[in-house]
Amino acid sequence: MSLDVRVVLVEPLYQGNVGSVTRVMKNFGFSDLVLVNPCKLEAEACAMSSHARDILENARIVSTLEEAVGGANIVIGTTGSTGSKIYKHIRMPYYVPRELRGKFAGMSGTVVILFGREDQGFNNDEMKACDMILTIPTSDIYPIMNLSHAVGIVLYEMSDIEAGDIPLAEGFDLELLHEHLEELMVDIDYPAHKKDKTMLMFKRIFGRAQLIPREVQTLRGVIGRIQRKL
Amino acid sequence: MSLDVRVVLVEPLYQGNVGSVTRVMKNFGFSDLVLVNPCKLEAEACAMSSHARDILENARIVSTLEEAVGGANIVIGTTGSTGSKIYKHIRMPYYVPRELRGKFAGMSGTVVILFGREDQGFNNDEMKACDMILTIPTSDIYPIMNLSHAVGIVLYEMSDIEAGDIPLAEGFDLELLHEHLEELMVDIDYPAHKKDKTMLMFKRIFGRAQLIPREVQTLRGVIGRIQRKL
Repeated sequence: MSLDVRVVLVEPLYQGNVGSVTRVMKNFGFSDLVLVNPCKLEAEACAMSSHARDILENARIVSTLEEAVGGANIVIGTTGSTGSKIYKHIRMPYYVPRELRGKFAGMSGTVVILFGREDQGFNNDEMKACDMILTIPTSDIYPIMNLSHAVGIVLYEMSDIEAGDIPLAEGFDLELLHEHLEELMVDIDYPAHKKDKTMLMFKRIFGRAQLIPREVQTLRGVIGRIQRKL
Repeated sequence: MSLDVRVVLVEPLYQGNVGSVTRVMKNFGFSDLVLVNPCKLEAEACAMSSHARDILENARIVSTLEEAVGGANIVIGTTGSTGSKIYKHIRMPYYVPRELRGKFAGMSGTVVILFGREDQGFNNDEMKACDMILTIPTSDIYPIMNLSHAVGIVLYEMSDIEAGDIPLAEGFDLELLHEHLEELMVDIDYPAHKKDKTMLMFKRIFGRAQLIPREVQTLRGVIGRIQRKL
């Protein structure tokens, strides 16, 4: 049983940042890096990675977020603290890095942490792919952190968390639960214009709750029973 | 009453790092930077400081550590986790950044945090100037952090600590206490070869204890009474 942490950089723009990210990953004992459509990685990335060039060379390069998060038990998106108001309903609630230790101590599974583009962060669909949203509390005067600094602080908090034997539910099973709930929404004629927001609310609640496999099965049992009763 | 944090970089070698340090300082709401004999600060430092160029431009440049820590109530030295064994007696005990919040909540005064050279860290005299030693827990495989990453993690932990009305003792009064103790050591014929280590032990104990002014006065009163009795 172990708690595996994967870092995913979504379309990073500056190779120096990618190199710096690998260095701070290695400082905190992490090595699993996936890059979604990254910038070119050449001499500067190598220079900034310093003695973590192995992580840079072994980074998996993919073209979709879906590939990057494959096999995840939970997907955490890291955003700046100043989200546009329009996305408020899909960004909330925020977690701060300090809460990660308490959330994951004693668990096992694969935790994927997403970091967005240096300039634009995540788009809407990327935000929706996250089970939890994490934000680093920064000054209002200058909240925009360098990418590798943000990664450093999150990994600092994720490092030396004691894993345990409580398994996080499989991403695939969570997806089935999600689809099952969506079916139920249709069965009960849930208003179409509210459905997406409510489904996202469920995703976030389950993300916050760190469901274990048995809970997912029980929830699906309840939904099935409701459906049969209908 | 406030808790003021000053960052001191001792002989930083790379201007990009100095720029990155100013950025992460501003991210966490800090602005007081002192550089002891820094490298040249030119275009790259400005580029890496990004929107924190004001901090870079207002950084005080000095030529001695003594000037850099002037006015401090407490001096914290940040070191890598792999100190040479020979310095062990002057490096211990280590604090980790997570402990800072508990240590300084409710206090007021000026906390100076020292960061050493990228390659060599601190020399012996610089270590001795510190009241507390802080180390960031890192992987044994690659413990050497980038300077600005280390600053980022320490400031992340120092940010939004609620100051209070418990004043930290003045550095000057602590020095008088130290001198007074040293006098006492002479009065009691303390073995010369042990004196330095023992004096450093006292400094570290007082650093850990975050003395308030009244405690310093009372300690000096006790020492004075011992001396008169002798």
